[in-house]
Amino acid sequence: MHESLINRIQQFVPLSDTEKELIRQLFKVKTFARGEYFLKEGQICQHVGFIQKGLVRYYINKEGEELIYGFGMEGYFACNYESFLDHSISTKNIQFIEDSTLLMITHAGLQQFYSDIKGGERFGRLIAEHIFVESVKQISSLYSDPPELRYRKFLESYPELLQRIPQYHISSYVGVKPQSLSRIRKRILG
Amino acid sequence: MHESLINRIQQFVPLSDTEKELIRQLFKVKTFARGEYFLKEGQICQHVGFIQKGLVRYYINKEGEELIYGFGMEGYFACNYESFLDHSISTKNIQFIEDSTLLMITHAGLQQFYSDIKGGERFGRLIAEHIFVESVKQISSLYSDPPELRYRKFLESYPELLQRIPQYHISSYVGVKPQSLSRIRKRILG
Repeated sequence: MHESLINRIQQFVPLSDTEKELIRQLFKVKTFARGEYFLKEGQICQHVGFIQKGLVRYYINKEGEELIYGFGMEGYFACNYESFLDHSISTKNIQFIEDSTLLMITHAGLQQFYSDIKGGERFGRLIAEHIFVESVKQISSLYSDPPELRYRKFLESYPELLQRIPQYHISSYVGVKPQSLSRIRKRILG
Repeated sequence: MHESLINRIQQFVPLSDTEKELIRQLFKVKTFARGEYFLKEGQICQHVGFIQKGLVRYYINKEGEELIYGFGMEGYFACNYESFLDHSISTKNIQFIEDSTLLMITHAGLQQFYSDIKGGERFGRLIAEHIFVESVKQISSLYSDPPELRYRKFLESYPELLQRIPQYHISSYVGVKPQSLSRIRKRILG
């Protein structure tokens, strides 16, 4: 059940058998139906979830409109990391857009992971650095990039999602109405 | 010379005498004159600098205009962390606005810090998390907050800088012309 998570962690740091067992205890399996939320704005993010199966979208509400700024799928961690880290109220929403299975760890559990696993702190540093780089790119792109560039970045970041995500979610990510998205697609794909 | 840096690190993790000595070797003293750059857009950020004395401003160029999104002073680390981490080309500028003294470490030096200092990875994780939370706040605020809120956040984040920074830098941070800043100040300070 936890093998994909353990393999993911071992891409960064080695794990002993005892440590793998601890990981199985710390990360609890939880299933969510499509449409349910991992996190809603106004809440504090209490978990990091490893997506074993399924798909989430990240969005903010801006003047009544939903702006999607990211997606997460198998092998990704789902979290509003800034809310999780400093227990601040989330301005972001994380919603399941497929039936999903996650392995969830609490804040306290993650502290135990850091202290009891030899490479735990190193893994935490590398993941924090990775999330940092990705998040800065995502936010900067959301606010600065024109729609055509947004679409190119979508294709680059999530090539496997093109068939899995409804068109209106891709439009929201790109920041245009669905009919404009068709025009952009035609221009890019020729 | 390195005492303020060592104290800063010890706020997060303990250090042995040998480790303190290694830190003195890894971080090299460098001085900069006001107006010089820690990093210019188009360059790759090669160092993390600990500001022992002095002041920097962080800004981006947007359509010929300089938008200041942050400041760094004594006790802060100066870096474009996303450029430093993945060796990407910086779109940001970091300029000294006072004569400054920094303790500079290279990318290779920092890897040695992580591996040879017992709490090195832990310190790296905590700093990466801290920079992450602050950066997300800074970018989101730069793009979303109205000027009056920007000014309130400036006062909150950098109360000690009000007397040290020229008005036109504060205006740029707030995102208004200097005369509008005076009106905002009057409204807030009564």
